[in-house]
Amino acid sequence: MKTNRIELAGVITQGPIRKQSPAGIPHCHFVLEHRSEQQEAGLPRQAYCRLQVVASGQGSQHKTQHLALGSNIKVSGFLAYQTSRNGAGKLVLHADEIIDI
Amino acid sequence: MKTNRIELAGVITQGPIRKQSPAGIPHCHFVLEHRSEQQEAGLPRQAYCRLQVVASGQGSQHKTQHLALGSNIKVSGFLAYQTSRNGAGKLVLHADEIIDI
Repeated sequence: MKTNRIELAGVITQGPIRKQSPAGIPHCHFVLEHRSEQQEAGLPRQAYCRLQVVASGQGSQHKTQHLALGSNIKVSGFLAYQTSRNGAGKLVLHADEIIDI
Repeated sequence: MKTNRIELAGVITQGPIRKQSPAGIPHCHFVLEHRSEQQEAGLPRQAYCRLQVVASGQGSQHKTQHLALGSNIKVSGFLAYQTSRNGAGKLVLHADEIIDI
């Protein structure tokens, strides 16, 4: 039950915000918005989604240093639930690949 | 900006519920829960997520007719935001492929 893979193209609409964890691990956070036309039941349909993205680790810095508000990118990684302090959960895309498009 | 592709393995923890739209299009709805260990910043980490899934269209019926609570499956498709009547949005996985695992 390992498969957890997502590829999403979109535009950065919030951030990027760069932080370092107490353990010294760099993290880059941003919001990615996606709009496209997909096929469903043989019919075209609009698909819109908006996801929090995080890119973590030393290796991620060179992938994210050039990113800015409005950057058009394709992000690949896995999805995980993040529970905030008030218990509300949200899905976060943990990126391991970021490509300019 | 078309790329919107997700593959997620998991277990059905709610549903499946089968309905037909006013236009006669069959839909199958269920909740998929995923748990796995992923790699991030060179370190293993637990990944948990829970997604609403919908499989729509005549072609989807033979893919979903055998599904039941507890089925272990891998689902592929695209992500789209669904805004409910009260304006709250949630991400839904629109499935075009469902494999038993």
